[in-house]
Amino acid sequence: MLIQVVNPNTTASMTDLIGRSARAAAGPGTAVVAVNPAMGPVSIESHYDEALAVPGLLAQIAAGEAGGADGHVVACFGDPGLDAARELAAGPVVGIAEAGMRVATHLGRSFGVVTTLARTTGRAWDLAARYGLREHCRTVRAVEIAVLALETDPAARARIAAECADVVATEGVDAIVLGCAGMADLAAELTVRVGVPVVDGVAAAVVTVEGLVRLGLTTGKRGEFAPPPPKPYSGPLAGFGGEPSGAHAPHLSPVPTR
Amino acid sequence: MLIQVVNPNTTASMTDLIGRSARAAAGPGTAVVAVNPAMGPVSIESHYDEALAVPGLLAQIAAGEAGGADGHVVACFGDPGLDAARELAAGPVVGIAEAGMRVATHLGRSFGVVTTLARTTGRAWDLAARYGLREHCRTVRAVEIAVLALETDPAARARIAAECADVVATEGVDAIVLGCAGMADLAAELTVRVGVPVVDGVAAAVVTVEGLVRLGLTTGKRGEFAPPPPKPYSGPLAGFGGEPSGAHAPHLSPVPTR
Amino acid sequence: MLIQVVNPNTTASMTDLIGRSARAAAGPGTAVVAVNPAMGPVSIESHYDEALAVPGLLAQIAAGEAGGADGHVVACFGDPGLDAARELAAGPVVGIAEAGMRVATHLGRSFGVVTTLARTTGRAWDLAARYGLREHCRTVRAVEIAVLALETDPAARARIAAECADVVATEGVDAIVLGCAGMADLAAELTVRVGVPVVDGVAAAVVTVEGLVRLGLTTGKRGEFAPPPPKPYSGPLAGFGGEPSGAHAPHLSPVPTR
Amino acid sequence: MLIQVVNPNTTASMTDLIGRSARAAAGPGTAVVAVNPAMGPVSIESHYDEALAVPGLLAQIAAGEAGGADGHVVACFGDPGLDAARELAAGPVVGIAEAGMRVATHLGRSFGVVTTLARTTGRAWDLAARYGLREHCRTVRAVEIAVLALETDPAARARIAAECADVVATEGVDAIVLGCAGMADLAAELTVRVGVPVVDGVAAAVVTVEGLVRLGLTTGKRGEFAPPPPKPYSGPLAGFGGEPSGAHAPHLSPVPTR
Amino acid sequence: MLIQVVNPNTTASMTDLIGRSARAAAGPGTAVVAVNPAMGPVSIESHYDEALAVPGLLAQIAAGEAGGADGHVVACFGDPGLDAARELAAGPVVGIAEAGMRVATHLGRSFGVVTTLARTTGRAWDLAARYGLREHCRTVRAVEIAVLALETDPAARARIAAECADVVATEGVDAIVLGCAGMADLAAELTVRVGVPVVDGVAAAVVTVEGLVRLGLTTGKRGEFAPPPPKPYSGPLAGFGGEPSGAHAPHLSPVPTR
Amino acid sequence: MLIQVVNPNTTASMTDLIGRSARAAAGPGTAVVAVNPAMGPVSIESHYDEALAVPGLLAQIAAGEAGGADGHVVACFGDPGLDAARELAAGPVVGIAEAGMRVATHLGRSFGVVTTLARTTGRAWDLAARYGLREHCRTVRAVEIAVLALETDPAARARIAAECADVVATEGVDAIVLGCAGMADLAAELTVRVGVPVVDGVAAAVVTVEGLVRLGLTTGKRGEFAPPPPKPYSGPLAGFGGEPSGAHAPHLSPVPTR
Repeated sequence: MLIQVVNPNTTASMTDLIGRSARAAAGPGTAVVAVNPAMGPVSIESHYDEALAVPGLLAQIAAGEAGGADGHVVACFGDPGLDAARELAAGPVVGIAEAGMRVATHLGRSFGVVTTLARTTGRAWDLAARYGLREHCRTVRAVEIAVLALETDPAARARIAAECADVVATEGVDAIVLGCAGMADLAAELTVRVGVPVVDGVAAAVVTVEGLVRLGLTTGKRGEFAPPPPKPYSGPLAGFGGEPSGAHAPHLSPVPTR
Repeated sequence: MLIQVVNPNTTASMTDLIGRSARAAAGPGTAVVAVNPAMGPVSIESHYDEALAVPGLLAQIAAGEAGGADGHVVACFGDPGLDAARELAAGPVVGIAEAGMRVATHLGRSFGVVTTLARTTGRAWDLAARYGLREHCRTVRAVEIAVLALETDPAARARIAAECADVVATEGVDAIVLGCAGMADLAAELTVRVGVPVVDGVAAAVVTVEGLVRLGLTTGKRGEFAPPPPKPYSGPLAGFGGEPSGAHAPHLSPVPTR
Repeated sequence: MLIQVVNPNTTASMTDLIGRSARAAAGPGTAVVAVNPAMGPVSIESHYDEALAVPGLLAQIAAGEAGGADGHVVACFGDPGLDAARELAAGPVVGIAEAGMRVATHLGRSFGVVTTLARTTGRAWDLAARYGLREHCRTVRAVEIAVLALETDPAARARIAAECADVVATEGVDAIVLGCAGMADLAAELTVRVGVPVVDGVAAAVVTVEGLVRLGLTTGKRGEFAPPPPKPYSGPLAGFGGEPSGAHAPHLSPVPTR
Repeated sequence: MLIQVVNPNTTASMTDLIGRSARAAAGPGTAVVAVNPAMGPVSIESHYDEALAVPGLLAQIAAGEAGGADGHVVACFGDPGLDAARELAAGPVVGIAEAGMRVATHLGRSFGVVTTLARTTGRAWDLAARYGLREHCRTVRAVEIAVLALETDPAARARIAAECADVVATEGVDAIVLGCAGMADLAAELTVRVGVPVVDGVAAAVVTVEGLVRLGLTTGKRGEFAPPPPKPYSGPLAGFGGEPSGAHAPHLSPVPTR
Repeated sequence: MLIQVVNPNTTASMTDLIGRSARAAAGPGTAVVAVNPAMGPVSIESHYDEALAVPGLLAQIAAGEAGGADGHVVACFGDPGLDAARELAAGPVVGIAEAGMRVATHLGRSFGVVTTLARTTGRAWDLAARYGLREHCRTVRAVEIAVLALETDPAARARIAAECADVVATEGVDAIVLGCAGMADLAAELTVRVGVPVVDGVAAAVVTVEGLVRLGLTTGKRGEFAPPPPKPYSGPLAGFGGEPSGAHAPHLSPVPTR
Repeated sequence: MLIQVVNPNTTASMTDLIGRSARAAAGPGTAVVAVNPAMGPVSIESHYDEALAVPGLLAQIAAGEAGGADGHVVACFGDPGLDAARELAAGPVVGIAEAGMRVATHLGRSFGVVTTLARTTGRAWDLAARYGLREHCRTVRAVEIAVLALETDPAARARIAAECADVVATEGVDAIVLGCAGMADLAAELTVRVGVPVVDGVAAAVVTVEGLVRLGLTTGKRGEFAPPPPKPYSGPLAGFGGEPSGAHAPHLSPVPTR
């Protein structure tokens, strides 16, 4: 089984970190390829970044389908482009917010999310509502560390741990969900430090996709998520249109896969 | 006052129709400019189309801001890119789904939506839920006419009228909301034919933006909708990044405004 | 276009203030008449006051209809008698709570309400729930200043400003909605002081009604909001019954309009 | 124990019917007095009627308090004026919609409401939502018989029975709630005919008030439902204002109690 | 009328206390018998205890039906086994959480629950959600006193009173619901001390069942709550199976009734 | 890794079927043991059966923990005893309803449930609500085939297939969830026949538990789901009490594991 994990920003070091977490989560016989787009923002910290990361993400989904991926993970906690990716892919597509939050519901009554910047917490609440988890999600907290600073700020780890501990102490949650793919390497350590299970969405999404593929389950394709109707596209995105055959969007200008 | 109405697809004849409806709705002293992007799909009929229409839409928002627009309408019933546009623009930004549905709530207890393709009804429900209108919206019906066929199919008008009448008869709604900007010219005629008010989202959004501008109200900018943090972008979307000064995204490659 | 703004209490100085705000919000070509009933309480600060303000309000709605008003604003934040007024009037009727809260939803994700007395906050929550805005409304705060003291208490302005600032600081809302028609003159000043848009419901309702009238939209009249069936009324309210012709309630004892 | 049951319309024959049902429901040692206002509409079939029935209702509540009633029932399925009555009365006040629907929840998972006119079903849904029973209430059906015709239309009983049977057959509800005080005499017969428990709100409210009084429970009076602040009232409703002492509103012009 | 109150734990002294409260709540002509199972836990303080108390509870319900009880109260705030008991019994069955919370809704807008151990608060929220009372229930607080320590801990009464007072002060609720049958004797005293009505669920359930029986209302038996289909059971619970005739479960090994 | 799958009824042939499905779903290196209790009902078709199946289920959970199971599946669509099992077990515990419904949410917007008897559909809705999936679950349909007849009724397979097809045709769902562990062998065949993914909860729960164990995630144990406090139990369930050491409930009378 081949699972493609797409980091929708363009920062290769973050893709590497995500790939390591994903491979650690995958079971025997599952190969993981971690990729990122060649176009778009270096990090996703606003609705603007998120919207503009989606074309590159979709190009990677199409490339991964063409390259034989059995399923896909969208490795950004805003779950950008998830509905569009499900239309495009034959295999299942899972976002790390949906996977992280859903996995947390199996661990108790409630969870809290700890993320990077306060301006992104609204998006996390949007997703919790859409996934039916408004009651289960008790709080979304931000440590005010920029996404790319997670790798470089020596204080990042301690601040995240402190916030997780505070969520447990004040909200009484049964679990924590980490709100950024760039925190994927922290879950095990934090689980020990804060005393409740800490869920990394990347790992959660990998095991979820793995399970779906093993069970032969993929997106229902008879209605809303049927392949998008082919049509002319123009301008810099012209390659996304055209006459799809089999996999959608054969005219997509090739995007290098890492 | 100058209001920019952005049709997020690339079909100029539809932009013309939208512009006529918008100008008819505007009050004395309000100028309306209707534009569409130079990149993206010719129509929006899937999550995939919608996602890929957003970059062009955002370029138009930025261009409109630079061109002195006091406020903006996003003229597609999926309200694509609305959150990102609110981050980007200094003036208010209103989508035609949110405006159409909210206006309908002032006309009674409940409304129904009549739209183009069944595969887009899920998005309409998503928006109704996000705007808090799940209880007010009783049904979302599709006539299965493609967006661009609204202009060319001689049977379109009659089928839409029949569906509206059926919604009133079977659901007892107090109002109808038209679920596509391409239906903007039908509201007045349908109001007479079906006997309840029929709301065109384009007109609703124009009067909403006009009111906001007159009252000096615009997006709150101290939190989630502050201007997006500037950062490097790469590939075909590189122009969307850079170091914004004043209005965001000065390096946006110029997009012709109609 | 003629818009009637009804202050449902009997205090003329407050009607004057509301009228000034309403006229400032109206666009070119729109005339505004502000009136109040000749019967009922001097201010509305309880469910009891609200219930007993409604007969006078409805008499004014009927008088306004007879006097050629194209639409009506109910200028009390409890939106008293709104459903009954919609049955009675041919033109659209909008309450200042519904208009204020709905306008606020176009300005970001969330808002807070700042109102007069704590005992009225329950009614504000009722309305937020009915309008589908429980999630958008983060808090309803009271400054414990009686309605009529808004005009006379020299500390009122500062206390309201302080409460608004605290709501922004502690709740992170994108906008504030003022929870009393008697605060209508404060919105512009507070917007500057607290750094997020502050919405006056009177102004919001005026532009909303203006938009509805311009678009030819009014209450759906085929079901719940059809004119009330005529029938005998007795006692001091006998004038509200009778055999309506054209406009309902022709036997209403005349109520002087300011 | 003395329970006052207020029929908020002015039709004495309906008050008699309500009184008989109420007395049949009361336990040993409980006296029931059934009254109706001397002012207002002969029946309540619109938001307009309901709003204009409230002053007369409140006068009866005040008179009942003065006359030694230990608790009150508001015997109209719209629960008109309930919040205001709770402010006014020292004893508990219960509406027949809230009592009927809450009692039904003890009888299974779901119930349906069968009422008079379709235009009143919106109000029933409003109340179900406010009482938290949107999920428990599966349908609200109207037989399109006017309130006063319940007494005179020989076909009324059969049509109501047929509608109840249809609700059970098509919705699978565990219970039926009758949606009008004028149906109070039908519950026992209908329970036998349709095979599920049929709840009369008048009887349900009587036993509810009786239980509250016996347990010494009444409206919490420290916040929203404290006695309304006294203040000047003018016009035909001037008697509702004044300086209350002990029971509120001593200047209420006397209203004869049946 | 005979009402059986079942304390689902095996502690006789607590059954006595519950019985006293129940008898004090019952009206003239109503007999109350308070019983507890001969099997199961001495107190219910976890989901585990609650699940294992249900067989004993159901045996008591069956015994009470055989013994002529007209209705039943389940006297544990988790409302254990309520759905199963409704299938089993011909008469109505009411839990003390549902009765306590529903009664509280007649006393104002909101209530708070004060209970024993924090680990049981999740169950209280589950029930509030199921009964549609998430909005009405503002908080669930625990005093961290074990159930059986309520009888023996001399500080219990003061701690419960302090918590009730704090709920009123900080949440502004209109009423308090006591979250344990073992607190049944405290309601009257606490009502005086904290200044808002304090509801004991046992008393609330007794008057609720009494009202249902008087009105001839019981569980709807045509669907979900029809008698359970008889079938073989094995092991220590074998007596719960068999071929029911009339009342279900005639082969239940006799359980002594106190 | 060892996963214990507990069929909570006592029918060994059904346990065999469940075990085969579970083993087919498990990945390389995962051992599955399928067991059922020695006490309780032969099938679960009522709230009564479900309640009385829980003691046997909990005994199996305790036995499985003692026997080295890393995680547990509760293989009945009512998810009986799930909260209690989570208190009892150190490893993760997942129900087939929660797993089946959550997996379905990754496959599109909506799903329908097809189950055995109509009287159990209420429980399915309860669970959907608790898991936050009321909006995602569009319908719960019953084929009116008793649980044990699934193995013996030659028409069962065709009727289930027909109901699934009807759900897709009339509700437009993206996926189907099978509502009984006894249908575990039908999912693959039905996926082909009805054209949307059909989810077997047993398989879904196995891959879910497998993922949790691989990621080192288990129930949060610091609050509601801490081990239940030990205490005396009496009667036939006395073995469930006692003084737990390490794993809870060492005095549980041994229950043979298949």
